[in-house]
Amino acid sequence: MQLGAIEAGGTKFVCGIGDETGQIIEQIRIPTTTPTETLAGVTAFFKQHPVAAIGIGSFGPIGVNAKHRDFGYITNTPKAGWENFNFLGYIRTHLNIPVYWTTDVNVAAYGEYQLGAGKDIDNLVYFTVGTGIGAGVIYQGKFLRGFNHLEAGHILIKHLPTDHFAGVCPYHADCLEGLASGPALEQRFNAPAAELANRPEVWQLEATYIAQACVNYTLSYSPDRIVIGGGVMHQEQLFPLIREAFTNLLGHYTETPDVMNYIQRIKLNDDAGLTGCLLLANELIATGQTVGS
Amino acid sequence: MQLGAIEAGGTKFVCGIGDETGQIIEQIRIPTTTPTETLAGVTAFFKQHPVAAIGIGSFGPIGVNAKHRDFGYITNTPKAGWENFNFLGYIRTHLNIPVYWTTDVNVAAYGEYQLGAGKDIDNLVYFTVGTGIGAGVIYQGKFLRGFNHLEAGHILIKHLPTDHFAGVCPYHADCLEGLASGPALEQRFNAPAAELANRPEVWQLEATYIAQACVNYTLSYSPDRIVIGGGVMHQEQLFPLIREAFTNLLGHYTETPDVMNYIQRIKLNDDAGLTGCLLLANELIATGQTVGS
Ligand SMILES: Nc1ncnc2c1ncn2[C@@H]1O[C@H](COP(=O)(O)OP(=O)(O)O)[C@@H](O)[C@H]1O
Ligand SMILES: Nc1ncnc2c1ncn2[C@@H]1O[C@H](COP(=O)(O)OP(=O)(O)O)[C@@H](O)[C@H]1O
Ligand SMILES: [Zn+2]
Ligand SMILES: [Zn+2]
Repeated sequence: MQLGAIEAGGTKFVCGIGDETGQIIEQIRIPTTTPTETLAGVTAFFKQHPVAAIGIGSFGPIGVNAKHRDFGYITNTPKAGWENFNFLGYIRTHLNIPVYWTTDVNVAAYGEYQLGAGKDIDNLVYFTVGTGIGAGVIYQGKFLRGFNHLEAGHILIKHLPTDHFAGVCPYHADCLEGLASGPALEQRFNAPAAELANRPEVWQLEATYIAQACVNYTLSYSPDRIVIGGGVMHQEQLFPLIREAFTNLLGHYTETPDVMNYIQRIKLNDDAGLTGCLLLANELIATGQTVGS
Repeated sequence: MQLGAIEAGGTKFVCGIGDETGQIIEQIRIPTTTPTETLAGVTAFFKQHPVAAIGIGSFGPIGVNAKHRDFGYITNTPKAGWENFNFLGYIRTHLNIPVYWTTDVNVAAYGEYQLGAGKDIDNLVYFTVGTGIGAGVIYQGKFLRGFNHLEAGHILIKHLPTDHFAGVCPYHADCLEGLASGPALEQRFNAPAAELANRPEVWQLEATYIAQACVNYTLSYSPDRIVIGGGVMHQEQLFPLIREAFTNLLGHYTETPDVMNYIQRIKLNDDAGLTGCLLLANELIATGQTVGS
């Protein structure tokens, strides 16, 4: 059985086909322009490569609560043309197959949970530190959500008194994303993040913020493991610094598993999202549902 | 059918009997001294008033994961004699009836969820601002927990630059509990919290910290409602200040229900905990379990 995957990002869409085990067979990239143009490319791809069901991980915020009017919509993005766009509806109408619909970070979390760094556990927090910071929580095999999906990349954390950078989040200035995303690094230090590799003070500061996220996620979810992905985490030297700062900040208050095992790097890398989409599409087929979220 | 309730606190135990509807019929208070002494009082009470099952909400941290060795234990409390004490085991051995075992804040959350300010919703965050700050999350009718129970009263938040108080948390200094608990108010302003009633700057500051907790809980759980209890919340003037600060801090990023409805005061007050215990005990009977958590 062939299954489909759509990772819908603000700069590009990645569409893939694969099998029930999450194996990716082929993928293409389509630039994110207008919904009409981009989605014409998407539907053309899936008409050429027929699939039994599709999993979508979308940029957002999106509506994931089937009880709400905005279910299936991209809601308040600044990206022209995509605000209040019924993405799920478009795909269901044009392809007429079962569709699983969730956030971009959730599909990557699911891929890691099933086949990557969260393979052996029940409860996973996955978060990505890239252009933005997003978190997905898998709780007993399902995505944790409530009124809507989580937005735990925007939590308020301590702004170090020695760090005079105002933060880049347009909504909250110095929330976690505002202080620790790739663009925050780039604006604070006036250079592309990758070029800051040899400046230890950059990663020491970054690790303190990421460690605060790990502390708050630990206290808020008590997961079995925290897995971190995203472009910024290519700086592998961050991991020992994050683990050390995490241990100090947590202050031995709650028991957690061994920190080496507890805080890990993403394993599937760029494939995590498509893999998660395929597996979620497969679950729709397995359970006979036409739409999932 | 008579059911039992134990609210086990660091200064006193409240034991109650009641019925399947959560109605409290009688209650007594027993000072928290040593486990032997205090629990002799507890078991004597329940031998005088036989019950079909008991719900316990205990101070902690406690072990609530049945897969772990510390299940049923009070783990690392500074309270002499109670550290690594098998509380659940003691009650089960001495009373030999079904026992539901969870945290003090969870039982109050459950009471509010079933009969109080969370009666009409699916997902509730309840937190208490008293001697400490504790949070309980009810997710689709069940307590959210993972490796262990949540400790979201200790999350790291922004320490206002104008607030030079170091914080009172022995583990994290200026975590949420360290900045905003009753003892934090009392040490910062050198007076019992209740006597600060007429100093608006006190409640303005306190509201900012509590609002940060509400923001982080909103982003982390996306609940239908946040309910706040505890001694400090007797200062009713806090609620409009919290709602205002919450709205400003959240920055219209995620949609939430109307804030008046979304952030509410506890309804059952001092009865929330015992009520929750009775209802949890009742569920054990209804499902035929001998131990729950
Ligand atoms: N090797 C690297 N080292 C540090 N930062 C990087 C590296 N590669 C990419 N980044 C940063 O990560 C961000 C992009 O994140 P990424 O996860 O790749 O994409 P997105 O979040 O847009 O999906 C950019 O801000 C970029 O500066
Ligand atoms: N009316 C009040 N106004 C402000 N703070 C109060 C008031 N009553 C009690 N407190 C504070 O609440 C804390 C006790 O919290 P409470 O919830 O009653 O007990 P506990 O947390 O120990 O179960 C104390 O620090 C006390 O100063
Ligand atoms: Zn933000
Ligand atoms: Zn603390």
